[in-house]
Parts: sequence; C-alpha cells; structure tokens
Amino acid sequence: MNNEQKMAVNAIRVLCADAIQKAKSGHPGLPLGCAAVAYELWANHMKHNPKDPEWFNRDRFILSGGHGSTLLYSLLHLFGYGLTKEDMMQFRQLGSLTPGHPEYRHTVGVEATTGPLGAGMGMAVGMAMAEAHLAEKFNKEGYPVVDHYTFVLGGDGCMMEGISSEAFSLAGTLKLNKLIVLYDSNKISIEGSTDIAFRENTQQRLESYGFQTIVVEDGNDLDAIGKAIEDAKAEKEKPSFIIVKTQIGYGAPGKMGTAAAHGEPLGDETIAAMKDFLGWPSQEPFYVPDEVYAHYKKIAESKVSDEEAWNKLFAEYCEKFPDMKKAWDDEFNLDIAKDLINCDEYWEVSEKADATRNSSGIAINRLKKYVPGMIGGSADLAPSNKTYMKDEGDFSTESKIGRNLHFGVREFAMSAIANGIALSGLRPFIATFFVFSDYTKPMARLAALMKLPVTYVFTHDSIGVGEDGPTHEPIEHLAMFRALPNFNMFRPADLSETLAAWYCAITSKETPTAMALSRQNLPQIGDAKKALRGAYVIADSEKETPDAIIIATGSEVSLALDAKALLKEEGVDVRVVSMPCMEVFEAQDAEYKESVLPNNIRKRVAVEALSGFGWEKYVGLDGKILAMEGFGASAPYSKLFPYFGFTKEHIAELVKSIL
Amino acid sequence: MNNEQKMAVNAIRVLCADAIQKAKSGHPGLPLGCAAVAYELWANHMKHNPKDPEWFNRDRFILSGGHGSTLLYSLLHLFGYGLTKEDMMQFRQLGSLTPGHPEYRHTVGVEATTGPLGAGMGMAVGMAMAEAHLAEKFNKEGYPVVDHYTFVLGGDGCMMEGISSEAFSLAGTLKLNKLIVLYDSNKISIEGSTDIAFRENTQQRLESYGFQTIVVEDGNDLDAIGKAIEDAKAEKEKPSFIIVKTQIGYGAPGKMGTAAAHGEPLGDETIAAMKDFLGWPSQEPFYVPDEVYAHYKKIAESKVSDEEAWNKLFAEYCEKFPDMKKAWDDEFNLDIAKDLINCDEYWEVSEKADATRNSSGIAINRLKKYVPGMIGGSADLAPSNKTYMKDEGDFSTESKIGRNLHFGVREFAMSAIANGIALSGLRPFIATFFVFSDYTKPMARLAALMKLPVTYVFTHDSIGVGEDGPTHEPIEHLAMFRALPNFNMFRPADLSETLAAWYCAITSKETPTAMALSRQNLPQIGDAKKALRGAYVIADSEKETPDAIIIATGSEVSLALDAKALLKEEGVDVRVVSMPCMEVFEAQDAEYKESVLPNNIRKRVAVEALSGFGWEKYVGLDGKILAMEGFGASAPYSKLFPYFGFTKEHIAELVKSIL
Repeated sequence: MNNEQKMAVNAIRVLCADAIQKAKSGHPGLPLGCAAVAYELWANHMKHNPKDPEWFNRDRFILSGGHGSTLLYSLLHLFGYGLTKEDMMQFRQLGSLTPGHPEYRHTVGVEATTGPLGAGMGMAVGMAMAEAHLAEKFNKEGYPVVDHYTFVLGGDGCMMEGISSEAFSLAGTLKLNKLIVLYDSNKISIEGSTDIAFRENTQQRLESYGFQTIVVEDGNDLDAIGKAIEDAKAEKEKPSFIIVKTQIGYGAPGKMGTAAAHGEPLGDETIAAMKDFLGWPSQEPFYVPDEVYAHYKKIAESKVSDEEAWNKLFAEYCEKFPDMKKAWDDEFNLDIAKDLINCDEYWEVSEKADATRNSSGIAINRLKKYVPGMIGGSADLAPSNKTYMKDEGDFSTESKIGRNLHFGVREFAMSAIANGIALSGLRPFIATFFVFSDYTKPMARLAALMKLPVTYVFTHDSIGVGEDGPTHEPIEHLAMFRALPNFNMFRPADLSETLAAWYCAITSKETPTAMALSRQNLPQIGDAKKALRGAYVIADSEKETPDAIIIATGSEVSLALDAKALLKEEGVDVRVVSMPCMEVFEAQDAEYKESVLPNNIRKRVAVEALSGFGWEKYVGLDGKILAMEGFGASAPYSKLFPYFGFTKEHIAELVKSIL
Repeated sequence: MNNEQKMAVNAIRVLCADAIQKAKSGHPGLPLGCAAVAYELWANHMKHNPKDPEWFNRDRFILSGGHGSTLLYSLLHLFGYGLTKEDMMQFRQLGSLTPGHPEYRHTVGVEATTGPLGAGMGMAVGMAMAEAHLAEKFNKEGYPVVDHYTFVLGGDGCMMEGISSEAFSLAGTLKLNKLIVLYDSNKISIEGSTDIAFRENTQQRLESYGFQTIVVEDGNDLDAIGKAIEDAKAEKEKPSFIIVKTQIGYGAPGKMGTAAAHGEPLGDETIAAMKDFLGWPSQEPFYVPDEVYAHYKKIAESKVSDEEAWNKLFAEYCEKFPDMKKAWDDEFNLDIAKDLINCDEYWEVSEKADATRNSSGIAINRLKKYVPGMIGGSADLAPSNKTYMKDEGDFSTESKIGRNLHFGVREFAMSAIANGIALSGLRPFIATFFVFSDYTKPMARLAALMKLPVTYVFTHDSIGVGEDGPTHEPIEHLAMFRALPNFNMFRPADLSETLAAWYCAITSKETPTAMALSRQNLPQIGDAKKALRGAYVIADSEKETPDAIIIATGSEVSLALDAKALLKEEGVDVRVVSMPCMEVFEAQDAEYKESVLPNNIRKRVAVEALSGFGWEKYVGLDGKILAMEGFGASAPYSKLFPYFGFTKEHIAELVKSIL
C-alpha cells in the first residue's frame, strides 16, 4: 500500500469513527476492519459510476453487515455519489441521509436495506440470479449487455445465520459464478470471541456448497485483496467466497481486535490515539485532506468510461435487435400489467368449484405472457402451490433462462432472493404453505420496508389443510401480515377474487402482496372488479338497513352466504361483505367504506377460520367473531370445519345472539 | 438381514402403506425408505423401554421428517408402546392418536412435535445440550445417572433448511458427541430430483461443522446401519452424522425412487404389488403375522433390563448423595417458583428509572437461585439483552455445567434448541432484539403447540430502539405474538411489571411467555401484583365514572399518566389502565375485566408505540388508537417519540376528540 492509498483507506476509517462519535451511537468495528477491502474493491475492481448510480450494468455491492453503514456512507461520500460531509455529520439523526443502517430508496447508492444479519447474503444471491437470467435472456454474441458482478460483504454474524447457508447452498448448486462474497473474518462477535459459539471451518463449508474459496491473510494487504477479487472474477463456473482475515476496529488502539470495537463509539481519546496510530494529519473531526478527495475524484472519473462504453454497446444492440429492445423495455416495465384491467381473457371466470390455489395457478399462467419480468417459484412445493408457469422452462444449473425457480426447501433464503430479484427490476413471486410464511416473514418485512413489489403465494390457508394437522394449519398468520406496514394481505374467496388479488399484486409498484389460498375447492361466488376495492357487499339485504352484517373472507364467504339464506328463512335479513384484503379496503375513500360497513349498523359478525385477532376493527365491541380459538387438528377438512364451529347454523346463531 | 428381520422391517412398510391408503392421505416415501434404519436403531441400539416411555435415561428419538409419522406410529405399535392396530387404522382422523404429524403430549412415545422441516434437528441439538448439562451437573464417579443419546432422523428437506445449519454448526462447536443424526439421503424432494436445488456435498458440510461423518451405502443393510450407529456412539468428542443412502418409497414398484412416492397414498394396486415384491404373506390390509409381533415383543422385553439397571443405580445414587437427590428433584420441579409469590426479596422494587431490559436482568438474577432448572442465553446479544446469570458460568465446548448459553447469531436454531431443552424437563429462556423475534416465530409456534414453558426475552421493544432505525424497530411483532394461541405476550411498563412477567413465565407449565422490554429508561410507576392480572387500573379518575379510559403498555404507560395529569388541568378526568399482557387479562373472570374496562365506558384511547392492529379489541369502533402507522426511523429515541406523535399532548387531544 503506497502512501496515497494508505491515506485513502484511512480517510474511510476517520470518517466512520468521527461520524459514530458525533452520533454517540454506531458500529465502528466493521468499517475500520474492512476499510482496505472496501477501498480496493470500489477503487480498482468494481464497475460503477458515481455520476450515474442507477446505471444498469454496474456491479452491485451489498453491505450485508448493515451495522457497518458508515463504511458505505464514507465510500459514497468519497467517491462522489452526492453524500456530503454534512450528511456524514448527521449520521443517525432524524431525517438525515445517513440512517443507522443503510436504507434502499433513501440514500443514493444503497443497493439494499440491510441490518438483519445474513439478509444481504440472500439478497445478493437473488441479484446474481437475476443477472444470470437476464444475461441468458438478452445477451447476443458480441453484445454482452448484461454483464456485471454482485459483491456482498458480511461478517461472522452473517455466516452464522441460517439464511446464508440456505442461500449459498443454492448459489453453489446453480453455479452463480458472478456472485462474489467477501467474508470479513475477524473472529469477534458481540459476546466476545466467536470461539464460544462458532468454531466451524467456514472455508470447508463453502467448498461443500460448490464455491471457489480464496483466503486473504491480511485485511490491509491491498495487493492480496485485489488478486483475490480478480481470481474470483476469473472463475467461470463457481461462485467465489473470499475470506479476508481482518482485525475488528483496526487502527483503534486498545480496542482493535476486541468486542469493545464492535458496537459503540470509540470515545474521543481512542479516536485521538487512532489518528496518531494511522499517522492522520489532523485531529479535527471529519478532516479529510484535499489530496485524498482528489485521489477519489480521479478514480471516479476513470470509472465513467465503463458506462460510456456500455451505453454505446447498448445503443448498437437496440438498433441491431429492435425486438430485444422492446423485450428489454417490457421486462423492466412495472406498469406493463395495468391495462389488463380491460382484458377479458384475464378476467374470465368459470362456474366450477375450484381451490383458490388452482385459481392462482390460472392467474399466473394468464399473466406470464403479459408480464415478461415475472419470475418465480416455490420452496419445493410447486405441485401443491400451483405456481408452475407452463412452457416457461426451469431456472437451473445448466440454464438460467427459465422463469420457473426452484428454491429447494429454503423458505427463508427464497424470500431474501425474491427481494434481490425485485431490487434488480424484475417481478418475483415465491410460494410455500401459508403456515410456513413464518419463515418468509423477516424478509417480507424487508420487502415492505424497501417497498418492493414481491408477491407471496401462500397456499393451504387454514384448517382446510385437513389431515396434515396443526403443524401445517395457519392460525395467527393473517394477523401477522395484516399488522405489517405497507403489505397487502389477500384471502380471496374464489377465482374472481384471486384474479383481483393477482391484479393488485402484479400492478403494485411499492407494496408487497401476499395471498392466502385454499387447498380445498370453493364455489364461484365473487366479483373480481368489486374485490379490487378490498371489501364489497357480495349479497345485500332486501331491507334498506340490514338487520346485521356478516363479514367473511376466503373459504368462509360461501358459508356466510349460506348463513344468510338460513337467516332469511327465519326472517332475519343480513348483508354479507366479502373482505379479501383489509389493507386495500382501508385505502378506499370514506364514502365507499361507509357504504360497505355503515357506521350505524353495529350488529356485525366476522367469520374467518384463523385467529380472530384484529377483527374487532370491523365488528367492534358489540359484534361477534367466529374464528379459531386455538390450534387446528388432523382430520379431513370436511370434519374440521364443523368441529371448530364453522357451519352456517353456527354463524346464524351468532347473528341472532346479537340482534 | 435374516428372514425374521426382513419380516420385521417389512411389517413397518406394510403398516405405513396401509394406514396412508386407508386415510387417503399421507407420506409413504420416508417410512418405506427408512424402515430398516428405524428398525435397526430401535431394535438393537436404542436404549428405551416401551413399558415406561417416560423413563428418564432413555435414548431420545426425534423424527425430524415428521411427515413420515406412520414410521414412528408403526414403531410405537410394534414395540408395544400401547398404540393399537386400530389406532393405525384411524391415521389422520379426528381425535385419533395418530395425527398427520407426530404430536407431543398427544401420542405416548412421541418426543417432539415435528413437521416443519429441520425443526427436529434443532430440537435434538437442544436435547443433547440438556443431556450434556445434566450429565456434568449430576453424574458422580461410578454413577452416570444421566447418560443417553439423542437420535434424530431427517431427510433432504431437513438438511436444506437453514435451521439445521445453524443448529449443527453450534453442535459441532460444542462437541455434543451424544448427538447422532441419521440423514435419510434419498435424493428426491417434492419437485423431483434434489439436483435441481441441492447439489452440495452434505458430508463435507457436516465435517466443516466438526461432525464425525459415516456413510451407509445401502439403507436396507442392517449390519452396515448397526455398525454406523455403534461407531457414532463410540465417538467421544464429535457429534455424528450418518448418511444413509436410501430409496424413497422402497418396496413400492413403479414409485420407489421417485417423487411420486413422497406425499400421497400409493394406491391399492401399488400396495398389492409392494406386498408381492416384499414377499408379504397376505394382501389383507394391516395384516401382521403373529411371529412378527412375537419378534418385537421379545426385543421389547429385553429392553426392560436397561431401565431396571438404571433404577438400581439411581436408587443407590440417591442414597449415597442425598443432596444430589434434592438437587435433582428441584431441577425438574416446574412448580418450584410458585412460592416466590410471597418472597419479598423477589418483588423488591426501586424508585430509580430504569430500562425494563435491566429489570429483566434483575429478575433473572433473582430467580436463578430459586429455579435451578433455569438455563438460557442470547443469540450473541447478552450484553444488550441483559440475560447473563452472574456466577453461573458458561455452557461451552470445554464445560457444559454453566447455565449461560451462547447461541451465536442464530435466533432460529436458538428457539428450536430452547424447545429441546424444555422437552428435557428444564426451564429455558432465550433472548434477542424484539425485531428479530421474527426469526424465533416458527419455533415459538411449536413451543405453543407443544405447550412448552419457554421464555423469550425480547429487548429493544419499539421505536425506543432509536438510532438503529427501522430495520431494528419492531412494529408488527406484538400483534404477531398476540394472535398466536397459547402464548403470553408481555410488555411491562417498569421493574414491578417486569417482575410480574417473569413470575408468570417462571411458574407457567404449559404456556410460553415472551416479554418485550425497553432499551430506554422508564420511570417506576406500576404495581407488580396487580400486573399479574394482565391489566389493571394504574390511576383512576376521581369521578365514579371516568370521562374516558386510556389504555397503554410498556413505555407508553407513563406517557398516559402524564396525559391524564394534563387532561385533569383541563377538567377531563380519565382512568389509565396499564395492560402488560392481553392474554393474561383475557383469562381473568368477567367481573374483574368489567371492573377494569366497564362496558358502558366507550370513550377509550389505546396507546402503544407499535402497530395498532388488534387494539380495537379494547377501544372498539368509537375509540382511538395512537400507534405506529408505518415503520420507524433512525434517530435518538427522544426525537422519535414526539416525531411519531407519542406525546402527552397528543394523547390528551385524542381523548378530547372523542368526548
């Protein structure tokens, strides 16, 4: 490392330490330990253009150890992404561009929101899958228009989390050779030495997945780091795993190499000692010499030519292959499905009873030709989830052009990968049994936070699962997702409502959508266009003011209709409201909401064969809720519904009990 | 395999295939493929006594691939655990002892509820940890009173799930040599060949964790299986991983070796062909020759002597070491903490403001001497979660007697391990940030389903997290757990309420308990004994009938009290209810509930700095909810509370808006 490089690397350390100190909060350990790695990567090996952070063919960089956010912010500042020194000074303050963990859509140059350890690893695998898919789909001989690497940096915590195991096992299987993982191996975590809980041979583990592994013995050795990265890029078959042995908090005397450097400000004294240790020319906080800025500026300017060359290549490509240009635009057009609102073929319904999981399969297979960016699959349950796109091929080790993804039994990584694919501009959907949506929850949360339009196909949506019993019967899952901000949770009653759910999903640009779908057949009773409003009157009373309102979702809507008929015989005239999506209904105007659920009609009964938690929102303190009080049981579903009280007679009784 | 053995093994296959066929539902693939493995293990290597399924020192067997439940049921039937042929015939029927997946507490001999793949792997690690801990704590020279193995059988799906990676990495680190994993390697999963998503070298991966690995080339070779198990038992340092190469659905012509054998009945024709193929003497469903029963009976009888020998040893032990006998009884006494209700030392409070995470640390350190079976730790966040039990030592690679567990950054495995420890009769607690409770959710669900009194210490419980920002600020998590059946979710307001939460947790015998605890300091305002009822009037109006009721939890209770004072100045006289646990409150008698929240007082405002989803349960359609509408932000918490409207002024305004 020459002096110029040394100053450039230490500028990162100084900015990070000072920002954290000023905020009185943050994590200096990773940024100080990895400053040289990050510098070498961004300066000499990563294709990126600070002047155009959105350039399509840039290499991606994900900081999986998101707590080291100041590292990323320092890079964005020094390379000229527009993040100012003042922004660095506002680290972790309300409204600043430098929040505690990197946030996608919030700070230019941040490719993904990270913080939950391991998440970045999974998202990076998703990005590498998207790149491989797009490359195979779009590249032509002499026109490698899709050709970039995905770099991801994470530490011991990321490697301990199961999500990275799942994601890397799949990445190795799929031979995603353009995925390059940088492992910040510093042997320290919050509770102390990783020896207390983590003695595995991580290199051997990654080899078992089919990764090329490379060891860099000294995390400050730029040449070794650079050679490792180039060796990784040169590998044409396997993804690469670069183990960089670092010292946590490098440069901070008395703290480096210890857990004390991990997650709190170094303190003024240690920072002063650090600046001495590093030979930094000033003790002034946030001081960076002009020549360091000049150094970064020169590098940034040298990066522009990469994009210029690509722009030229892409322009030629578009001219030579006008169909491909059209396909390209369609691929990334998140508005492409909007016009389906008027497409009769899409909205066609049938009269035959069917499971809504089948209805979803119909929707997917109708949508696939209109929405080329749609890509997805299941965690080994495609035959049950009905997610297979016919004639669209399989995304596999041998070929990446297929649109059907196979995640294996890895729901957690699947949901992170979906985020990575969405971050790449495509429209992913993923699938599993609704009860296992639990495993997707942490990453669905990140999707909601990042405003990614991922779609979740959750089948086997209630005690309707039947024989598989309580381990496979979702109960609390609707409430879990309904409580999640920026997330649309659908439970459609039939094909028409499933088409509505899919239409909402496929036209959403900033909100993830999940649908809970039945295993069992349901009658065709709904209205697709009305369902687009989240809730609607599916059968009204003859009286102007109904005696009561029954609100139901999914498989219970037809039960509610049966109860209405029964009540009618007894002279009680009720309205039935189908409510496939609470969140979409809440987003309607007040007038519409009042028209469906008039405030003055308080005799209300909600019916849903899962947890009743949250239904008081619509039935209040004077209504009744027919829901599951505990877990389900193992038996044919036709026995379970009456066993747990889901009969028209019981609903009718509940209605009468509040009249 | 001699003929007698062959018949014994095939009896399993026949019973499984017939049970599934009769139920018209189930998974024959695993049971048929693993029949020989299971037979050899249970017949010749596992220490168990069908006459006393609860015998303390039995070897444990967990069927991680719970969908293969008929395998376990067949073993329980044939070895004489009391499961009858009629029970087998009632497979997957309402109320039967043979539900779709094995259920703990429901069927004698089932050690854990399994079904969600990989869960059994994690629970087995927990059981092996409990065994190692108890052995080191109780065994005396010549008196190995705790000395048993934990066997767990799972397939490709279990190995793909990240939870098994987390759990096995920890098991290898901790050198749990009495853990023996049997891997049913049949290379088939639901979507077809595992090659589509799972090409890793699993043997190498397990070696990287520090496991001994053994390969059995033929899953029907009893000698090879037996030798592998004995080699595993002989290993004194490492846990063992036995790869058994099997054929899924072995014996079912036309289906064996294919995904078609996995998850649906074989069909009458295939079953007939199977019985021919296996040389089975009858086509009659569920037919098992008397000599097969006699064979199993002989084995079962031979097993009795193991327990008799242990009973003798244990009796001598108790006589020789009366203190240890007392300690033993205390260790497993789930009622031991009950009397703390009258222990002033436990309930001592202070006047100094403090974070409830610190209060929890105080509670833990008060409880540890009264509750010797209490053992626990954090997923690498003990210093933040405040879970360390002082002077109780660390459970480590070198010594297992310590009560402080170190899980590494592995929340998912941690929560499965906690289940395994609870299944072993101890009282585990685990900890992480509340936002990462997401990762514990799937296993917390299993704890609730199995009725295990696991305790979850979730700190950093709201936007009070502050600078770490939205990735670290829980929003929907309270609703998620409140919707989960048989689960107590506490959010205490101060030390007194935290002591109440811990008292509920530590005396619970069949319900898991979680507590959401603040990072920031809170004033001491509550009443511990009143908090034991889940909700109580913390400050009443002077009027007999309050003008309104403010209901709050945790850090918002003191805000509510401040709002009350402010309103008082303006002539509005409100009651404030602190509601640390909705579920415990719901379990109170109607009279008490009415006394806290009188039905006729509908002017109600709920305040909680997380998702408001579910609060209409207490405020109805006419009240107001002050809650988070979206995700949080990164800033000092003192800025975030007012930013998101959590001020006494805003609460007062809301109250006035509904008067």
